[in-house]
Amino acid sequence: MAERAVVLLSGGLDSATTLGLAVEQGFEAHALTVRYGQRHALEVERAEALAGQLSAASWRAVAVDLGHLVGSALTDPRTAVPQGRAAGEIASGIPPTYVPARNTLFLALALGWAEVLDAGDVFIGANAVDYSGYPDCRPEFLAAFERLAGLATRAGVEGRGARIRAPLVDKTKAEIVLEARRLGIDLTLTLSCYDPGRKGEPCERCDACSLRAKGFREAGVADPALGGGRQRG
Amino acid sequence: MAERAVVLLSGGLDSATTLGLAVEQGFEAHALTVRYGQRHALEVERAEALAGQLSAASWRAVAVDLGHLVGSALTDPRTAVPQGRAAGEIASGIPPTYVPARNTLFLALALGWAEVLDAGDVFIGANAVDYSGYPDCRPEFLAAFERLAGLATRAGVEGRGARIRAPLVDKTKAEIVLEARRLGIDLTLTLSCYDPGRKGEPCERCDACSLRAKGFREAGVADPALGGGRQRG
Repeated sequence: MAERAVVLLSGGLDSATTLGLAVEQGFEAHALTVRYGQRHALEVERAEALAGQLSAASWRAVAVDLGHLVGSALTDPRTAVPQGRAAGEIASGIPPTYVPARNTLFLALALGWAEVLDAGDVFIGANAVDYSGYPDCRPEFLAAFERLAGLATRAGVEGRGARIRAPLVDKTKAEIVLEARRLGIDLTLTLSCYDPGRKGEPCERCDACSLRAKGFREAGVADPALGGGRQRG
Repeated sequence: MAERAVVLLSGGLDSATTLGLAVEQGFEAHALTVRYGQRHALEVERAEALAGQLSAASWRAVAVDLGHLVGSALTDPRTAVPQGRAAGEIASGIPPTYVPARNTLFLALALGWAEVLDAGDVFIGANAVDYSGYPDCRPEFLAAFERLAGLATRAGVEGRGARIRAPLVDKTKAEIVLEARRLGIDLTLTLSCYDPGRKGEPCERCDACSLRAKGFREAGVADPALGGGRQRG
């Protein structure tokens, strides 16, 4: 019987690739999407579609009413998503799209579900290379959460605490693009943009679009999510 | 200016006492109630009333749709809350009212709000004496979370990670009852019962009621939340 894993799946390129890797490694992968007051419910639809395309064993969405508590450009319509910055300008400092304690919250929810499923592994698409500004994407944060997991749950107390796996943590965006292609992920479903149009059209101006464009450019691959497969130069 | 703190407030005796202690220590205390699919919204009303009675600087409730993800006697109406056990029978093993990763989730939400408020302290009413069956009430769990907090947030990276304070962690229920009385907490507002009546009448049969009754008995105090101040013997 396959080992079970919970995979955090936002609907973006990184988390889809992470799910693809978990499935490739033979895990019975259960995908979890957290709705936390994103402006766009579209991300949730895309996540569900990706879970299907990548043969996740199950998919769940959990709503957390985070907008009342923490503000960020990703949860608060009054805060502008930064636009027009080149990818090279992005990596310094913590960006306004930072959501306080977001990955701690996501991993807490994944850890709870993992215990219910008797899953020994939790996958997260955290990446410390292109967005080193997010403190909760760094390997030392992930290691500290794994240590916490060994103390936090019944499974942990019984010596079956969840391993926290972040297979993309040290990969460049170009490497992630090539992995996603190798895994056969339908990249038209992945939505990286912070501020997409109503049908999911990327704005091609926000930080996430800039980073994604840079990744595809460096990988020498056209982004099929852009209209007609055109590539932003 | 007073230092700020976030205080997790469920509406029970322990969290109310914890809020009272935070206020007494001079903190500008911001109370946070997490709705996670409790059967009884009454707990949330009681928490709000207690925040007012204890002069919290603000109160927020955050909803997490946890019932879809993790089952327990506290979130799943199909699982029975254990009844009729004496307090002495309760402390062995992890009870069916255990909610996987609950305090990890609660502390993650509190940590996010603490960062927004620039609060350096997070208070939680965890207690490892009467309910040692809950892994996420133990001091080693709380210490691991504090270490995580130093890595998880912008504030942590800047050397202002939140301290996790659990002032009741090593107190008996009787000691907590006496602290609550000393602090002038309106104990008729506190709701410990897992399975209360429509107006908040304690069932006087569940584990939480048994523990509470034992605490009042050992403290030599009548529980004013019981009809007419009578004490269960």
